[in-house]
Amino acid sequence: MSDNIKRMIDLAYGRELPELVLKNCRIVNVFSHEIIEGDIAIDSGKIVGIGQYKGEKEIDLNWKYVAPGLIDGHVHIESSMVTPNEFARVIVPRGTTTIIADPHEIANVCGLEGLKFMMNSGMELPLNIFFMLPSCVPATSFENSGAILDADKLRELICDERILGLGELMDYPSVILGDEDTLEKVKIVKGKLIDGHGPNISGKDLNAYVIAGVRTEHECSTIEEMINRLRLGMYILIREGSAARNLETLIRGVTKENLRRCLFCTDDKHPEDILTLGHIDNNVRLSIKMGLDPISAIKMATINAAECYKLKEIGAIAPGYVADIIVIDDLEKFNVVQVFKNGVLVAKNNVPLFKVKAVDVSKVTDTVRTKEVRKEDLKIELKGDIANVIRLLPHSLVTEKVIRKVETEKGYFKHHKNLDILKIAVIERHKATGNIGLGLVENFKLTNGAIASTIAHDSHNLIVIGDNDEDMLLAIKEVVRVGGGITICSKGEVLKTLPLPIAGIMSNKSMEEVNVTLKEMLDLAYNKLGVNNDIDPFMTLSFLALPVIPEIKVTDMGLFDVSKFQFIKICDVE
Amino acid sequence: MSDNIKRMIDLAYGRELPELVLKNCRIVNVFSHEIIEGDIAIDSGKIVGIGQYKGEKEIDLNWKYVAPGLIDGHVHIESSMVTPNEFARVIVPRGTTTIIADPHEIANVCGLEGLKFMMNSGMELPLNIFFMLPSCVPATSFENSGAILDADKLRELICDERILGLGELMDYPSVILGDEDTLEKVKIVKGKLIDGHGPNISGKDLNAYVIAGVRTEHECSTIEEMINRLRLGMYILIREGSAARNLETLIRGVTKENLRRCLFCTDDKHPEDILTLGHIDNNVRLSIKMGLDPISAIKMATINAAECYKLKEIGAIAPGYVADIIVIDDLEKFNVVQVFKNGVLVAKNNVPLFKVKAVDVSKVTDTVRTKEVRKEDLKIELKGDIANVIRLLPHSLVTEKVIRKVETEKGYFKHHKNLDILKIAVIERHKATGNIGLGLVENFKLTNGAIASTIAHDSHNLIVIGDNDEDMLLAIKEVVRVGGGITICSKGEVLKTLPLPIAGIMSNKSMEEVNVTLKEMLDLAYNKLGVNNDIDPFMTLSFLALPVIPEIKVTDMGLFDVSKFQFIKICDVE
Repeated sequence: MSDNIKRMIDLAYGRELPELVLKNCRIVNVFSHEIIEGDIAIDSGKIVGIGQYKGEKEIDLNWKYVAPGLIDGHVHIESSMVTPNEFARVIVPRGTTTIIADPHEIANVCGLEGLKFMMNSGMELPLNIFFMLPSCVPATSFENSGAILDADKLRELICDERILGLGELMDYPSVILGDEDTLEKVKIVKGKLIDGHGPNISGKDLNAYVIAGVRTEHECSTIEEMINRLRLGMYILIREGSAARNLETLIRGVTKENLRRCLFCTDDKHPEDILTLGHIDNNVRLSIKMGLDPISAIKMATINAAECYKLKEIGAIAPGYVADIIVIDDLEKFNVVQVFKNGVLVAKNNVPLFKVKAVDVSKVTDTVRTKEVRKEDLKIELKGDIANVIRLLPHSLVTEKVIRKVETEKGYFKHHKNLDILKIAVIERHKATGNIGLGLVENFKLTNGAIASTIAHDSHNLIVIGDNDEDMLLAIKEVVRVGGGITICSKGEVLKTLPLPIAGIMSNKSMEEVNVTLKEMLDLAYNKLGVNNDIDPFMTLSFLALPVIPEIKVTDMGLFDVSKFQFIKICDVE
Repeated sequence: MSDNIKRMIDLAYGRELPELVLKNCRIVNVFSHEIIEGDIAIDSGKIVGIGQYKGEKEIDLNWKYVAPGLIDGHVHIESSMVTPNEFARVIVPRGTTTIIADPHEIANVCGLEGLKFMMNSGMELPLNIFFMLPSCVPATSFENSGAILDADKLRELICDERILGLGELMDYPSVILGDEDTLEKVKIVKGKLIDGHGPNISGKDLNAYVIAGVRTEHECSTIEEMINRLRLGMYILIREGSAARNLETLIRGVTKENLRRCLFCTDDKHPEDILTLGHIDNNVRLSIKMGLDPISAIKMATINAAECYKLKEIGAIAPGYVADIIVIDDLEKFNVVQVFKNGVLVAKNNVPLFKVKAVDVSKVTDTVRTKEVRKEDLKIELKGDIANVIRLLPHSLVTEKVIRKVETEKGYFKHHKNLDILKIAVIERHKATGNIGLGLVENFKLTNGAIASTIAHDSHNLIVIGDNDEDMLLAIKEVVRVGGGITICSKGEVLKTLPLPIAGIMSNKSMEEVNVTLKEMLDLAYNKLGVNNDIDPFMTLSFLALPVIPEIKVTDMGLFDVSKFQFIKICDVE
């Protein structure tokens, strides 16, 4: 250590030659808020000097702009449907060198083994992956997940230095009410960070949430929510993901004076969006497009995130900082053309120059365990021909509870080809309990087929929708067969399947391959099955089992009225 | 702990009544950079909520401005010549509730016992005192101090949570050259902070200084120095003390974009300046006067300092933060009218409402140990009548080396009443070694007397100046008799003495009493002894033994040429 400092001093002073010097840079200085011209001397993965340097190896950057590597403050890697390795292969060339991952999804399927898989996967990548411990596994008591992570379980991992604290405390009623197990989780991360997830909270509720230790929020959708949280000392993560895009609204609330408390995240971002729009580089570009000056946007993507998450020696280009450096063609367009991680060139012109290792997936595969589903399990008994129906709203995760007159046969629901009311089922798939929750859905639209998926937030049970029981049963069988995934069936045939063998939510293929398959399947859904063009069938399905988003959802335990916070019967209409 | 969080949540939510509510405040919000109207709910010393609250006790602040307690980022309490207790009694009513103290002065006299005394003194005060471990004891190898604090000694204290790191690394050549003991000190504070003290360093030297871990600088005197350091990731402490006042210059370099990396300090501030100008409140006022907006100035004095020194839950008014709150009459004038520490009113209208306890001083008194000084010890042997003389410059700590023709008697220097050349002696006073360094001084001016002091940076040996040996011997005897202090003697009589029994550098009296005595003594110096009005005799004496400030100084080891970095003889003129 002492020897190392000595050598670092010798290098900075110029008594020894550093391994690498990036010559002739225009350096984005996040401290002085300037563009500085000079060389960057690098050795042992760290920046050792800024100024005029000679190195053993020199790369002339010819006065291109360089900035610190970008940081995603909050991301569920699982939403990209690929492994951490593959995720890194795609996002690193786009300039992201550090992410704070919340492995909430895999934890709901595989518990601690899921967390360990994610942590092991991230070990040898040219990407710093820090983790927040998922705080809500299961997410609610209204569904059965694959695992329960109580405070005692979380305690096992808390000392790992890559664990920065407790992930999004979505269950804010429990926090505000002082629920014992929730507070026990808060207690074990003392000294580390707690991420929030509390849209709509305000006033005394918000004060209570903050005093419990919650220090960040990524769910703001209005400037008012953002300012209210800034005032109480929370950091604001401005999110630009797939399902939720808040940047264009919130960036207007960022001022020179509150900028330091604002950073970026993607939260959930799907393959198509990452591949076409980018990752955190997209947040930066969009902010600049919205009028923020480029240096401020870069600060949000670098030093601000590092300060928020107390990441040492990350987020700036200065002596002692890790040499995570991106080269940009132009400050306004912000295209990342080269990426250095720990001083090594790892990507050029959007092409990764590193190989990712295969990771042992044995403990996170074969996770789909169901009791065989029979036709009679899908029967919906009604009292008359009036039923509670989940109505989908266009481009929204929020649903509406409506009452509809439906077709029946011998007291059971029967699909009528002229009525847009489909059957949906959520099948417990972790412990083969045979639990099945049933419901009816309007506005999905689908003819002669079924779609099934094992991505269903947050417990990731098996969800299936269809207009006939035969295709629904086939679709169930198909996703069970491949160990989890998404499938489209029609007229007794499997049209296409995306296998997601890792926890039933992630592929072992490349993001490009996953994307191609998904696009084909989307095409089939829209053009062959006639799914409503105003919804994304897979994303919609994945949120229909999430009992914390209003107004009516279905879990493996039944139809759930979110506004009343209780289960209801399909036939019990008021 | 869990119970405590539970209670805090109940209080924030409003299910229980907090102990105290400050009603109707205009709150300076350092996060959102706004003035917020509302109540502040306080319990168990912490802020539990901001908004509309009822409390067991309520204080109506009638829409006065409130801000977080102020923070001094770098201060030598010893320079106030009073104990930490007494220092707190004076500065807390002026709004300072947290200081980062560098007990460098007492450490040079008493070593670890000195540090422990300061740390014990600070225990029960309404003032957070954090400490930096003095890194340079002794300050140089050209003087004898009372103690040597090597890395092993410092290791004893490093784990105390009030120790934030390593104090100003003044010996920057040792850092840049990679001196082993210096790097060992750097090594033991790994993970904590290192304060810099490196004026004039730039380029590769500065890179080397920073990569060694130095993260702050309080010695900038130009905007260029400041910007160069900001660029490399250093925090800038803008100093407004007694000997050094940099605020009016440096505040012009503070922008909205680099503000977050700038904070305030006083470094060394004497009783008269603290009592008349104030403490960090003065830095805030002066900044506002110079054109900085008040909220920015308050951020520098609060949250910025807290961020720099990684002080948790300090520096803001928000749930979870310590209830260190000041009430201000007017945002521009910035007069502190009330101070709450941990939610308790501790000062009102500049009057402290707390008592300070007497502290055990037994291990830091009786520190003046000299071998008896005889007349012949003060004799300066010359080769001819030409001598090297220390020439004082008006209002400056810098001296000039000049060659003068002097009066002699039997080969020894003799004072001539028409020549302004005085004898000066630095007497080792820690281990009674009998070491005496002698010199000649021009431009101090003094007739028929002598002044002696045991404040002599950084080793605090006994320094005495005079125009006759009898008064010099008397002055030496007097400061030895009182166990350290400052004295003025004339014509065989002690005119006035300020005893400084604590380490020979601090009084056990109140700051006001010390100040009255000092003023009387200044009056005697100027009006009775005829000291040059362009110098402060006591401050000048205290810096004449500091061998790191150019150009020529005198230590107990002899006359020291700072530019050559070596001792020279008085008679060896070139």
